[in-house]
Amino acid sequence: MDYLAVGLDPEKSTIYVQSQIPALFELTAYYMDLVTVARLERNPTVKTEIKQKNFKDSIPVGFLNYPVSQAADITAFKATVVPVGDDQEPMLEQTREIVRTFNRVYNTDILVEPKGYFPPKGQGRLPGLDGNAKMSKSLGNAIYLSDDAKTVQKKVMSMYTDPNHIHIEDPGQVEGNTVFTYLDVFAPDKDKVAELKEQYQKGGLGDVKIKRYLNKVLEEELGPIRERREKFAQDPDAVYEMLLEGSKKANEVANQTLQEVREAIGLNYFDRLNK
Amino acid sequence: MDYLAVGLDPEKSTIYVQSQIPALFELTAYYMDLVTVARLERNPTVKTEIKQKNFKDSIPVGFLNYPVSQAADITAFKATVVPVGDDQEPMLEQTREIVRTFNRVYNTDILVEPKGYFPPKGQGRLPGLDGNAKMSKSLGNAIYLSDDAKTVQKKVMSMYTDPNHIHIEDPGQVEGNTVFTYLDVFAPDKDKVAELKEQYQKGGLGDVKIKRYLNKVLEEELGPIRERREKFAQDPDAVYEMLLEGSKKANEVANQTLQEVREAIGLNYFDRLNK
Repeated sequence: MDYLAVGLDPEKSTIYVQSQIPALFELTAYYMDLVTVARLERNPTVKTEIKQKNFKDSIPVGFLNYPVSQAADITAFKATVVPVGDDQEPMLEQTREIVRTFNRVYNTDILVEPKGYFPPKGQGRLPGLDGNAKMSKSLGNAIYLSDDAKTVQKKVMSMYTDPNHIHIEDPGQVEGNTVFTYLDVFAPDKDKVAELKEQYQKGGLGDVKIKRYLNKVLEEELGPIRERREKFAQDPDAVYEMLLEGSKKANEVANQTLQEVREAIGLNYFDRLNK
Repeated sequence: MDYLAVGLDPEKSTIYVQSQIPALFELTAYYMDLVTVARLERNPTVKTEIKQKNFKDSIPVGFLNYPVSQAADITAFKATVVPVGDDQEPMLEQTREIVRTFNRVYNTDILVEPKGYFPPKGQGRLPGLDGNAKMSKSLGNAIYLSDDAKTVQKKVMSMYTDPNHIHIEDPGQVEGNTVFTYLDVFAPDKDKVAELKEQYQKGGLGDVKIKRYLNKVLEEELGPIRERREKFAQDPDAVYEMLLEGSKKANEVANQTLQEVREAIGLNYFDRLNK
């Protein structure tokens, strides 16, 4: 519903449910033979997330392996371009390695190396409400498209600013101040943001005021999205229907790739029977 | 063809090709979330094979993970008993752990804990021709059911005996002497084996003589198997046909289990649409 609410058109973009595409599991299994455990343990994105999730020595195999399953997600559709945040670059690098290894080992060119499509500098990944890392469901520091206006307001009012900006008259810092980071991305009136920044840095502008302004700006962005989302939420079966159709389309493509992969590996034992 | 030659009856035993059962890949993926990397690294069978294969720090993920994929092989068919050599007990233990964790986490009882069915003491796993470890294709120290009589003879004549038994008149050792280990298992005339052992230990019985006797014993065992195997080898399409039928039957059972597993996890999103 988030996808649909922000404007993805299922007629143009195939939206599917990953777990409903069996070929992905099989591709993952074949790719697992082409990647070493040490290589996965060196992946910086995985390392960061292992720390965040506090796995310590209890890392689920499926978690360590998820860059490999992402390689299946990408290559099953022979994606040439993947739109991602720049923290996902190591994942794409892993995928490209798998593609090169597979094509070399099985002397083929069926798999395609993907490129990342990154947002322009400063407009990409947002920090979490707590100012750290990135917005993330598991860290509970994110604003959701499904949040109602009141929830968004509460979240904005709780946002991380400048911890040394205690009294209104204190000079405040704008760099690393999450509210200003968000304003830079979302406020259409850049002059006003520049003005607020100046005032904040001089002293005399309170956090509550800039947060209220951010909330207004976000509401203008999120209001129409929320409205569209509510419409879709009223007919969940229609959304499931769309996902079912998307998953069928995705299965056709993924199964075709899987067929080519199995041929390349030499697993089509029963072809000789012409059945 | 080996299976058929030793007497497995495809009417009674479903013989299938693992890579033709897609459900196994998907089950493996789900189980991978229930096992830690550290747990796999502690598996003694895996440890031994990592050493044998000389992987050092380049362990393929698929290799480390193969006890998990074996758990899929076993649980897909709800096997209660698995006939294995005793070196495979750690694999079964891993499977039982996965079954218990799955049933606990998803509050179900669909998966079944398997027991090992081990050969009687002394009649199980044979040492390799080199006297070490076990017979293994990758170690190149095995006799194959497809070996012709000449090859078997050559292999028997090269077998490891007592390295200190240099001259015929030297007393020889029977324990750890691969030829006698094989005779204990295969020679029907136990009295004759006891006699030979006594003579060998006293001195005066040469390795060539006991090897020739072992070769005769093995030939009586392997000859009829080889003959049956050759008949199957003359019509490979019939064997593939049998495998195709077996794989179809196996897919039905494995897909049924997968369906139950997906329901237990809660992945049957499209059931609400009644399609």
